[in-house]
Amino acid sequence: MTVIAPAGFEAAGVAAGIKRSGALDLAVVVNRGPSQQAAVVFTSNRAQANPILWSKEVAKDGVVSAIVLNSGGANCFTGPEGFQVTHRTAEAAAAALGVAAGDVLVCSTGLIGEQLDGEVLEEGVLSAVNRLGADAAAGEDAARAIMTTDTKPKTVVVDGGAAGARWRIGGMAKGAGMLAPGLATMLVVLTTDAALEASVLDRALRQATRVSFDRLDSDGCMSTNDQVTLLASGASGVVADEAEFTAALSAACLDLAAQLQADAEGASHDITIEVLGAVTEDDAVEVGRSVARNNLFKAAIFGNDPNWGRVLAAIGTTAAPFDPYLVDVSMNGVRVCHAGRPDRPRDEVDLAPRATHVRIELHAGEASATILTNDLTHDYVHENSAYAS
Amino acid sequence: MTVIAPAGFEAAGVAAGIKRSGALDLAVVVNRGPSQQAAVVFTSNRAQANPILWSKEVAKDGVVSAIVLNSGGANCFTGPEGFQVTHRTAEAAAAALGVAAGDVLVCSTGLIGEQLDGEVLEEGVLSAVNRLGADAAAGEDAARAIMTTDTKPKTVVVDGGAAGARWRIGGMAKGAGMLAPGLATMLVVLTTDAALEASVLDRALRQATRVSFDRLDSDGCMSTNDQVTLLASGASGVVADEAEFTAALSAACLDLAAQLQADAEGASHDITIEVLGAVTEDDAVEVGRSVARNNLFKAAIFGNDPNWGRVLAAIGTTAAPFDPYLVDVSMNGVRVCHAGRPDRPRDEVDLAPRATHVRIELHAGEASATILTNDLTHDYVHENSAYAS
Repeated sequence: MTVIAPAGFEAAGVAAGIKRSGALDLAVVVNRGPSQQAAVVFTSNRAQANPILWSKEVAKDGVVSAIVLNSGGANCFTGPEGFQVTHRTAEAAAAALGVAAGDVLVCSTGLIGEQLDGEVLEEGVLSAVNRLGADAAAGEDAARAIMTTDTKPKTVVVDGGAAGARWRIGGMAKGAGMLAPGLATMLVVLTTDAALEASVLDRALRQATRVSFDRLDSDGCMSTNDQVTLLASGASGVVADEAEFTAALSAACLDLAAQLQADAEGASHDITIEVLGAVTEDDAVEVGRSVARNNLFKAAIFGNDPNWGRVLAAIGTTAAPFDPYLVDVSMNGVRVCHAGRPDRPRDEVDLAPRATHVRIELHAGEASATILTNDLTHDYVHENSAYAS
Repeated sequence: MTVIAPAGFEAAGVAAGIKRSGALDLAVVVNRGPSQQAAVVFTSNRAQANPILWSKEVAKDGVVSAIVLNSGGANCFTGPEGFQVTHRTAEAAAAALGVAAGDVLVCSTGLIGEQLDGEVLEEGVLSAVNRLGADAAAGEDAARAIMTTDTKPKTVVVDGGAAGARWRIGGMAKGAGMLAPGLATMLVVLTTDAALEASVLDRALRQATRVSFDRLDSDGCMSTNDQVTLLASGASGVVADEAEFTAALSAACLDLAAQLQADAEGASHDITIEVLGAVTEDDAVEVGRSVARNNLFKAAIFGNDPNWGRVLAAIGTTAAPFDPYLVDVSMNGVRVCHAGRPDRPRDEVDLAPRATHVRIELHAGEASATILTNDLTHDYVHENSAYAS
């Protein structure tokens, strides 16, 4: 079950011919209402793709009727012609659905700097609108159509509410490289049949992404096309409690973030970096990120080498307040460094499992944060050296 | 010719038995005077090795008689015992040389978090002192003894002054991984027979490193053991002009930086990133660094893929003032992006040569900077995943 799991939504995924492979490459998700409230967060990269420029305008009034997503091309740094392609895509969807173009979001993902064919996109949109459905296959096709180097679709469903007043959140995500903060690079569509205003959706979405996608840092590279969209149909008729809804939305986002991490390009380890004892949560995030972005540490994990010196060398570059010579580091449960000195022998650490846990105790305060990352592997280098060819 | 090229210096390199391989692993450089003025710059990493903690104290008064350098172990995060090993090393050299221990610098490089054997180091120091010489072989041995994963020694000689008032700068460097700013990770010893005070040496060294080692960013990882040392014997009797000396020292540092870049672990491309049209030099450095640290860009260059979209995605994450949609990007002389849009076809770019030139024109101001980096390769991952084993 995917974005069509909550009541009020239809979806489709088609092969529009954007990808030369003939794979599914265009998805449409429609909110049939009764209400069309929405919230969207965008990449913080200043280099922004044309669909981001368009969608930012659409999202301003908190009303969104539909979203069109394509893989096979990012439509970024493609100039005014590229913007026209995005505009034409929204217009085509709007006409076919009988809604306003100003209520249609567009997302694109793929190679930067190549023009998309507006006619191909327009025909794809019409084909997708004709195939819209609320069955499982429709949701699955949509999730597959947004994949690039992803090896599998990522979907989630979370239920909320009480007996007689149930609501639901559904979601789909794509992303396998360029996973980095603010946001982890990806496209995500979340749907809910809860009856919530755009302002509530916006608060809930910002909180949920802050503790999920923003804590996923696969390779430190920030995308030009990131967009996380939350659409609410109100079809359940239930006004969800904001705190409960935010918690459920955070759970859905964390689930999708873990799926993105598990499918990161070429990775052989999923690394959870837990930072404890920081003065502030921001400090904990900075310390965790400095490790997540350290190529020497990431290569060591690939080689099943518990090289904790690289953890300390990485965190020593941060501005977070702590004494490097008081720090403890544990790897997969073995404390290899205590108070900035060797503790248990390295060879007690078993890094063979894919799931890797690094625990860093700063002993400077009470705040903590967890960052998700991956190792640096031969396959990562291979996939990213051959991407455009 | 190396650190013994200027008059007043002797050096030696021996196999002390720190490296299991039996390779040269300990070097001593002695300043025989008549003066012992010196300047030193250190890593800006807060996680600092014991020899850094020691050497910072030694360097404070601007007087240095000798420097001991070992490979085979970083002596970092090794606690008070590790500091005692450094202290004992300096004491041993001081006693053998008849100088004060407080005038003996110590540098170490190798794996973090492993204790060095103080007795092995002391015996190595005595052996090296017994072999001190000012012949070419002595300087070459010293340059080899500080190598870790370096495939070749790095040395330089630059001459200065006018007829009848010549002076000379010699140098050696090690470093192949963890090459990153503030400083590029490495050990460097520079010698000169110019008669200059420590305060002049300090100004000259800070300026020279700022435009050379600080602009080299091989893998974004900052070391715990970086140290660049400049020793002046005054043996030429010539008080060099400060501006001329600074220029010559900068040339020597740039030469060594280029040798470090060319020998970076596993690299197949030496990438020069030239940033033009920035508002300030700091902005230009930030923009260049953001590209140098972008794994997706670096992997693309490894694959001979002129993926300029990754350049723009990288620079879009900076705070430097410029409009991403006015930027021009050229690769090896071919302008592939003009005003944020595709320009010449990608396939006109030949990335087969090892020397790679990326030119980024921001069109925001008059400042510029050049950053040196390397590509991200299978061999980089391999060497750094197997380092500790």
